[in-house]
Amino acid sequence: MTTVGILGGGQLGRMLALAGYPLGLRFRFLEPAADAPAGHMAEHTRAGYDDPATLDAFAAGLDLISYEFENVPVAAARQLAARVPVYPPPQALEAAQDRVAEKSFFQSLGIATPPFAAVGTPAELDAALVRIGLPAVLKTRRLGYDGKGQFVLRAREDAAAAWATLGGSPLILEGFVRFARELSIVAARGRDGAIACYPLAENYHRDGILRLSLAPAPGGTPALQAAAERIATQALEALDYVGVLAIELFQVEEPASAAPALLVNEMAPRVHNSGHWTIEGAETSQFEQHLRAVLGLPLGSAAARGHAAMVNLIGAWPDPAAVLAVPGAHLHLYGKAPRAGRKLGHITVRADSPAALEAPLQAILALVAASEQG
Amino acid sequence: MTTVGILGGGQLGRMLALAGYPLGLRFRFLEPAADAPAGHMAEHTRAGYDDPATLDAFAAGLDLISYEFENVPVAAARQLAARVPVYPPPQALEAAQDRVAEKSFFQSLGIATPPFAAVGTPAELDAALVRIGLPAVLKTRRLGYDGKGQFVLRAREDAAAAWATLGGSPLILEGFVRFARELSIVAARGRDGAIACYPLAENYHRDGILRLSLAPAPGGTPALQAAAERIATQALEALDYVGVLAIELFQVEEPASAAPALLVNEMAPRVHNSGHWTIEGAETSQFEQHLRAVLGLPLGSAAARGHAAMVNLIGAWPDPAAVLAVPGAHLHLYGKAPRAGRKLGHITVRADSPAALEAPLQAILALVAASEQG
Repeated sequence: MTTVGILGGGQLGRMLALAGYPLGLRFRFLEPAADAPAGHMAEHTRAGYDDPATLDAFAAGLDLISYEFENVPVAAARQLAARVPVYPPPQALEAAQDRVAEKSFFQSLGIATPPFAAVGTPAELDAALVRIGLPAVLKTRRLGYDGKGQFVLRAREDAAAAWATLGGSPLILEGFVRFARELSIVAARGRDGAIACYPLAENYHRDGILRLSLAPAPGGTPALQAAAERIATQALEALDYVGVLAIELFQVEEPASAAPALLVNEMAPRVHNSGHWTIEGAETSQFEQHLRAVLGLPLGSAAARGHAAMVNLIGAWPDPAAVLAVPGAHLHLYGKAPRAGRKLGHITVRADSPAALEAPLQAILALVAASEQG
Repeated sequence: MTTVGILGGGQLGRMLALAGYPLGLRFRFLEPAADAPAGHMAEHTRAGYDDPATLDAFAAGLDLISYEFENVPVAAARQLAARVPVYPPPQALEAAQDRVAEKSFFQSLGIATPPFAAVGTPAELDAALVRIGLPAVLKTRRLGYDGKGQFVLRAREDAAAAWATLGGSPLILEGFVRFARELSIVAARGRDGAIACYPLAENYHRDGILRLSLAPAPGGTPALQAAAERIATQALEALDYVGVLAIELFQVEEPASAAPALLVNEMAPRVHNSGHWTIEGAETSQFEQHLRAVLGLPLGSAAARGHAAMVNLIGAWPDPAAVLAVPGAHLHLYGKAPRAGRKLGHITVRADSPAALEAPLQAILALVAASEQG
């Protein structure tokens, strides 16, 4: 019986366990929160990630350790890796935890990113604004997620307020890219180096939080998919990565040519919200794929099964009976208590054609919008 | 938070929980075995079904109770139903637990079954053999499953040996039907009376244990499906049933006409092994469908998604890496220790056409056969 340890016990961990039980796996989660989504259906060690003795006790008897959020302390991952195989490799955590290191990593591979500059002082912020121009986004280099720790600058005069809000942490100023749309690619690399890439998803955010993913991305071309897969493959190989990696992309229209270009926004060294559609919409879900990869099992097919839309449930959820009455709708609740701005679940709608997806998706979007107002 | 209690903690319970967590449900299992498949990922009350105080304690705080095996004592189900809604209704348990009551139930609806007679004494066995003819099968009326508690009689002289083996329990003699093939239909009825029927599955048994299901059943016609759905609908309505019901059928060629006829072999008032293919092969799995039904949620579509074959893993399982390398193969292990004759898991192979299913199914059958010999 193989037991997998997971650092973090949120919904991503929960969905990893749901995908892993059919493979005969057992799970143990390390998560400080008492009422963690993954704790409802697996062994739960309630503790943080900083105490070496806790980490040793957690690792005892585990066959493998992975993680479900990217802000695991790298030191903890390295300590665990000395006892038990840890995948994805800690160097991927390190590259993903610092927005400057992350963008520098992609640029070192010749992959385009939005313009950026590290900012440590008000003077550096002023200099960066001159170089990068406006509008721009000032972000903390570390620990930002779902739009937290960000300040949009639209005029030079915003610099003081931005600094007042975020100054004190190491920061990054990013050029505000006029993108045509946001895409993401979820890809996996096995222990043997095999790579499988899912079709691109098109993502819609509001207030910095993912609201809707459409997959395969509407209007995607083989050339666009190939461009995204080249980026994913380069990153996976450069990091000697094992597991699922998600890369968020901006698609921009190049003025000088007809070809669309992709810029890397950021990566997540884990299963990703924009890949939840794969549970019903792909031959192999991203959760099973991650487990296959880290366990050294063959990767599954990443091909789409029809067309899917994933709608996040933020702060509230609609009546399950109404959701389940919509043809092709699949409800995923995470067992979390409602709280404003919190990801409580998602709904995936799947159909055999984009046209057949339209009506049920509109029905779900209306239910979700009503629940958010109610 | 809705908490569902399940009587029994085997693989069917485990798969119910795996389907129910995404609906935001919690689970509590009542199961005497220590290392139960469902106990790995849900609350597990380790006790039997006969002690009223245990049943009361188990029911406390539950919103609903269902069961995952049909040999739950009816008295236990009735005691629980006085406190908490119990679905499917205890009268369905009662009808399914006694092979004579079960066949009489179908005959009372005008639905054909193989010829049968209740047998309580050697003289009754002799009389039944005269009436029903040879070959015939003597079975215990209660508690038989997977071919256990059965004796095939091929000659009148076998009667003594059959009686010696099974005599003492209430018995049934069933005529040995020369069927063209074995089919099953899995159907669900909601609290509101809505009914959804899955496509027929074709089933292959060996040593009395299901080995392989193909769904939708190859060569099935709309008329055959409609005939099976009429049987399922009559049974569901007559029992005022709520939940998933499986009915095993024999398809026989009527000599007098071109139309194939269906005889009911038996029913199971629960999710069923011949419906496991629905996890990947149908829009809604039988496990989610059962939970939708008993919770009073709308039933999901029972339509097939392509073509599926489900292969049981009996007593052993092949190397997971070899299984997962087969395109379209999905592994389901139940977390059970290997033992001869024990259902340890299943593999579903899914493809978009029967032709595309052929090669991966043959590959899986070869792996499974080798594992059984090794």
